[in-house]
Amino acid sequence: MTVPDAKTLSSFLTSARTRVDVALEQYLPSPPACPPLVSEAMRYSLFAGGKRLRPVLALAAAGSVSQGECGLARALPAACALEFLHTYSLIHDDLPAMDNDTLRRGRPTLHVMYGDGIAILAGDALQAEAFSLLAREPVSDEPDVVARKLRVTGVVAEAVGARGMVGGQALDLQAAGQAPGHKLALDAGGLRSMHLLKTGALIRAAAVSGALMGGANPDQLKAIERWGSHIGLAFQIVDDILDVEGNEGDLGKTAGKDAAGAKPTYPSLFGLEQSRRMAAESADCARTVLAGAHLMNGRLDEISTWVIARRH
Amino acid sequence: MTVPDAKTLSSFLTSARTRVDVALEQYLPSPPACPPLVSEAMRYSLFAGGKRLRPVLALAAAGSVSQGECGLARALPAACALEFLHTYSLIHDDLPAMDNDTLRRGRPTLHVMYGDGIAILAGDALQAEAFSLLAREPVSDEPDVVARKLRVTGVVAEAVGARGMVGGQALDLQAAGQAPGHKLALDAGGLRSMHLLKTGALIRAAAVSGALMGGANPDQLKAIERWGSHIGLAFQIVDDILDVEGNEGDLGKTAGKDAAGAKPTYPSLFGLEQSRRMAAESADCARTVLAGAHLMNGRLDEISTWVIARRH
Repeated sequence: MTVPDAKTLSSFLTSARTRVDVALEQYLPSPPACPPLVSEAMRYSLFAGGKRLRPVLALAAAGSVSQGECGLARALPAACALEFLHTYSLIHDDLPAMDNDTLRRGRPTLHVMYGDGIAILAGDALQAEAFSLLAREPVSDEPDVVARKLRVTGVVAEAVGARGMVGGQALDLQAAGQAPGHKLALDAGGLRSMHLLKTGALIRAAAVSGALMGGANPDQLKAIERWGSHIGLAFQIVDDILDVEGNEGDLGKTAGKDAAGAKPTYPSLFGLEQSRRMAAESADCARTVLAGAHLMNGRLDEISTWVIARRH
Repeated sequence: MTVPDAKTLSSFLTSARTRVDVALEQYLPSPPACPPLVSEAMRYSLFAGGKRLRPVLALAAAGSVSQGECGLARALPAACALEFLHTYSLIHDDLPAMDNDTLRRGRPTLHVMYGDGIAILAGDALQAEAFSLLAREPVSDEPDVVARKLRVTGVVAEAVGARGMVGGQALDLQAAGQAPGHKLALDAGGLRSMHLLKTGALIRAAAVSGALMGGANPDQLKAIERWGSHIGLAFQIVDDILDVEGNEGDLGKTAGKDAAGAKPTYPSLFGLEQSRRMAAESADCARTVLAGAHLMNGRLDEISTWVIARRH
């Protein structure tokens, strides 16, 4: 349990990911509690070597408002629930009825392996298991912990529903012309709104969840929520840039998909250079809102830089 | 608000359904809080004239452990969340990758109207909105209400995940040969296990949620949970029987689908007469477990009879 004492961002990321991976395995239902095939399918996608960005943000936020082990331990279930939700969204996004992607995290996508039906169900199950986990862990009758868990459940549910991730994905589908009779043309403002919902809402919720479970005071919570919004946007712009620049080996997914699908992206609307500037500006805004929040350490600040420097 | 005073089962059902329909509309996000298309798609399926069985069970359970209006009002959000979840499951079940059904509740299924992508997303959003609603309503800082809401969230999430509804749907898909390379042959025990997960878990959760929000004591809760298990099974057997006997006008969905898809059902394994006997036995068991639970009224008893007498 070296997370709280990690000296560098790199050692924090490594230990946080290890800790999350162990907990993900522990929190996911297994046979005989559930049928073997749905368990196997959930695990196939969950343990495909993801970056664990959302859990890392949640743990970093918890660690920035609490000292020692307690806040991190309390935030760990929420961190894992966020990864369940992110993984479910990738499984459904990759379906032929959506982005029709066959490669993800360097491996065939789930529907290629198990068929569309099981892929839809594995995604559905991961969403349900996320909320089951948020309600269940950490086990406690303390009214304060119970209230925090319920609040986090509400924040996360809103972030992944019609007012968040799924709403954004619906706009994306319309923009790509995949919702028959409901084609939508996105300008720069529309693209930003779509991304704020599609990826921004869950990233912000990750930061907020960690802060809440870590016991943030209202000022800290407000600052971390705004930080999460900026980081979410920066992350998405970088994602769009990497889709143009990256190669499949680095990305672990089909590169150039956005352009091939004629989807609007930051580089397609603003060009690469301007997109890079916009990502850097969002990261700067993220760092700025942390000033005066009296956080315990500079981890969120470091992460602001890391998010735009990443290569995959 | 005539629910608590309804004199007959029929007037209870009518007023409960009206109340639920009004609340469903109120609880579902609308533009500008969410994009118009996903809102439209969720409403299309939600307001297609469903029986509102799960909300009715939740309200009846709440009314059986509390007097007057308070327990019912507290259970109403959970009742609506259960209908969000049931509707999402129907949308996904009807997809070409699953049951490939084109008619539901007398109208074209959602994917026929909006395409598979939007249908998947509308289902995903309904699941998320269910948990958002469970976390949000009834609004209260009372530790007791907060604790009940969190407990209900956990019960419901487990019921719709891999250990419940989605697990059962995966078994169903395997039994129908729609999970390539994972065909499963279900015997009588396997069919029962599949149904206990696929429909039984959510029906039991409906009864338990209503009881919890209504303030059931441990004995009442235990009896109502067992009642919900028996009612869930009776409901499913009757559903299978109606699929053989019914016509599309009554059912509002394609009749004879089970036989056409070579899916195992109660009538296909046991014949119609024996299936009817098994449904009646489950309803009897349901009535029996209520004895000694000191409930406020005989509503759950009446519902036990109603569930097996229904024609659609």
